[in-house]
Amino acid sequence: MSGSVSEARQWARLMELAEIGAIPGDRLEDRGVNRPCLSALDRHARRKLIGWAEAIGCTVSVDDAANLFLRREGSAASLAPVLTGSHMDSQPQGGRFDGIWGVVAGLEALNALHDAGVATRRAVELVAWTNEEGGRFRPGCTGSMSWSGHTHPDRFRDILDPDGISYGGALEQQLGLEADIARRPLGGRPHAYVEAHIEQGPILEAEGFDIGVVSGIQGSRWFTVTLTGETAHAGTAPLRGRRDAVQDMVRAVGALNVLTADATDTLRFTVARIEVSPNTSNSVANLVRFTIDLRHPDEAVLRARGDAIEATIRGAVAGCDVAVAENFHAMPVVFDPLVTAAVAAAAAAEGLRHRPIPSGAFHDAQFVVPICPTGMVFVPSRRGISHNPAEYSSPAQLAAGARVLVRTLERLAE
Amino acid sequence: MSGSVSEARQWARLMELAEIGAIPGDRLEDRGVNRPCLSALDRHARRKLIGWAEAIGCTVSVDDAANLFLRREGSAASLAPVLTGSHMDSQPQGGRFDGIWGVVAGLEALNALHDAGVATRRAVELVAWTNEEGGRFRPGCTGSMSWSGHTHPDRFRDILDPDGISYGGALEQQLGLEADIARRPLGGRPHAYVEAHIEQGPILEAEGFDIGVVSGIQGSRWFTVTLTGETAHAGTAPLRGRRDAVQDMVRAVGALNVLTADATDTLRFTVARIEVSPNTSNSVANLVRFTIDLRHPDEAVLRARGDAIEATIRGAVAGCDVAVAENFHAMPVVFDPLVTAAVAAAAAAEGLRHRPIPSGAFHDAQFVVPICPTGMVFVPSRRGISHNPAEYSSPAQLAAGARVLVRTLERLAE
Repeated sequence: MSGSVSEARQWARLMELAEIGAIPGDRLEDRGVNRPCLSALDRHARRKLIGWAEAIGCTVSVDDAANLFLRREGSAASLAPVLTGSHMDSQPQGGRFDGIWGVVAGLEALNALHDAGVATRRAVELVAWTNEEGGRFRPGCTGSMSWSGHTHPDRFRDILDPDGISYGGALEQQLGLEADIARRPLGGRPHAYVEAHIEQGPILEAEGFDIGVVSGIQGSRWFTVTLTGETAHAGTAPLRGRRDAVQDMVRAVGALNVLTADATDTLRFTVARIEVSPNTSNSVANLVRFTIDLRHPDEAVLRARGDAIEATIRGAVAGCDVAVAENFHAMPVVFDPLVTAAVAAAAAAEGLRHRPIPSGAFHDAQFVVPICPTGMVFVPSRRGISHNPAEYSSPAQLAAGARVLVRTLERLAE
Repeated sequence: MSGSVSEARQWARLMELAEIGAIPGDRLEDRGVNRPCLSALDRHARRKLIGWAEAIGCTVSVDDAANLFLRREGSAASLAPVLTGSHMDSQPQGGRFDGIWGVVAGLEALNALHDAGVATRRAVELVAWTNEEGGRFRPGCTGSMSWSGHTHPDRFRDILDPDGISYGGALEQQLGLEADIARRPLGGRPHAYVEAHIEQGPILEAEGFDIGVVSGIQGSRWFTVTLTGETAHAGTAPLRGRRDAVQDMVRAVGALNVLTADATDTLRFTVARIEVSPNTSNSVANLVRFTIDLRHPDEAVLRARGDAIEATIRGAVAGCDVAVAENFHAMPVVFDPLVTAAVAAAAAAEGLRHRPIPSGAFHDAQFVVPICPTGMVFVPSRRGISHNPAEYSSPAQLAAGARVLVRTLERLAE
């Protein structure tokens, strides 16, 4: 039934969804997407997806975290379903493929099974997880974390978007506007979960592979550091008595660079968001807030380095008060051989060049690992560019991914 | 005639002007002011000043930079006038005294001469310089720089405020709305210039002095540094290949700290404004723009250290492109003995405790120095706090300053 995968249909659906929140680009290939979760754009895209799924006989349901499920029944209704899916929200300056392709590929797989008249024993369910990106409500993956029990959903309620709207409020609004859709309980125990995603890195393209059989996902910890000092006049205040939050930020990052040094270049340490107050050139800053994104495939390393961050900063600053908050953590995961073997076998059966590959980015799959055997399928990303309107994978690359996905799902559903 | 200075009148006028752009405070002493230059609030305050000055027979004129002049005639009309004044704009989170007191004290001096029926030989002119603070249009002192010929006024036309309004456009609007006021040519050559100002530092209060006889102003140089790197995914991009603008900013500031190190703690080096792009926690920053505020009383030091900034940054960064622009410079000045002696004599005649004091902050007086003998009078600032709603000097301290100012002006006007 992988022969029933339609490259043209999948691409047309992707491009139709890319119009919802489109960021104009000079060239067709540089058009991006800004589609925040729990927004009117998100609901518009979900309705399109529901329409396509209902046309092939799927049933629709939504859970308390607004995760959306589209189910194609199996012949043995009592067996746990096989789950596939990804997310439909984008980064604020995002591309047309990150997340949404995994959902469209799942639909393409259901469509191929339908067109080929295949009756699987287990049901196959397609899920669109809520807020994977964290682009509107930080952190991301709140839908899959709520579903899996990683974090109690109430913990996310008071997160505010840049306009001051709460996650809890936006979620209630979405559920209210989707009240016509059957409600299902949060959680579940699928037989297996497979997520298709673009690589978001350069390896498959550079090495000429069609498919990445994802071996696992490195762990991530996100922190916010607040340094509080004192304003002073840049001309009159001697340097010696200052409590300059910018200078203490420079000291802190310098010390963190030493803490996170790694000769193997495996560890990822990123400071990428900085807010300064009052942020005027001639008044010493009394407040700097900056983020830390720390990632490593080895849980012990991630724990040790992450746990040392606060003491490292306290030891480095000269005069500011220090507050460190951990906003997000996802420990490293290794995917289940049940799924990785099925993905590799599917790629082989399709005659595609494939290799095992770790994921540097986190994904909803990370939070499904404790619940059921889990794995992922990667397709190449042009030049590894992601979180960017220039993100691109070709129709043929994506069709190959969909063919591997449907073979994997069919095997797991037997 | 210093006996005609009215502590109550001066304070009432200051408090009336502080209502125009008032920032509410819990206690009366913590109320601040946000009065941008070339705004409706600015024009409102100027009209009040004009009304008070016209009531005592002053003539009013405005120049092409919107500097406002209020002239009390002398008996010898052909002699160059004595000039006093300061500015009426405030920092965005400013106090009730910085700048505006120098204007109100000048008016109080004219009022005292009027009340005492004193006829000076030279005219005495009061000036309110445009945009000293640079709070709306950066840099500041554009009014006095235009007047003195330090910088051609056209150089400032295209500066934008945070709302995208140009300095040239705001200036034209102001001149249009003040078209009823006589226009005077830009520039002039006064006999002398004296500016009264709060100290904005803690020295006079800490040492128990009433009056600072300002000896000169240290030099200032302002730079904007732009580091351009490349965005990348915080999870997938190895650290080794990154062109991370935040990390290069940390390297640059570290190297600048070495360049500007000063065991005597005389040099002022401040990085206080930082903008990061895209400023999201999980995307490596591709752009950081930060400001440098460098000050020193010795011109040779200021030139040498400032001229080395660009090479120091280029030598420190790892991968980013570097652009350094100098936005503002004011070389150190030493005030003229004609004026400093007059201020010291006036303070002595008033029985006030006075000392010579250098100015760490820059002032419009800095740009008048090449034009005529120039000096300043400081009064104490509570705890040295300035550029802050908590800025405070008492009615008695300000009245003492006005008495010294009127004596100084009377002496210089003979």
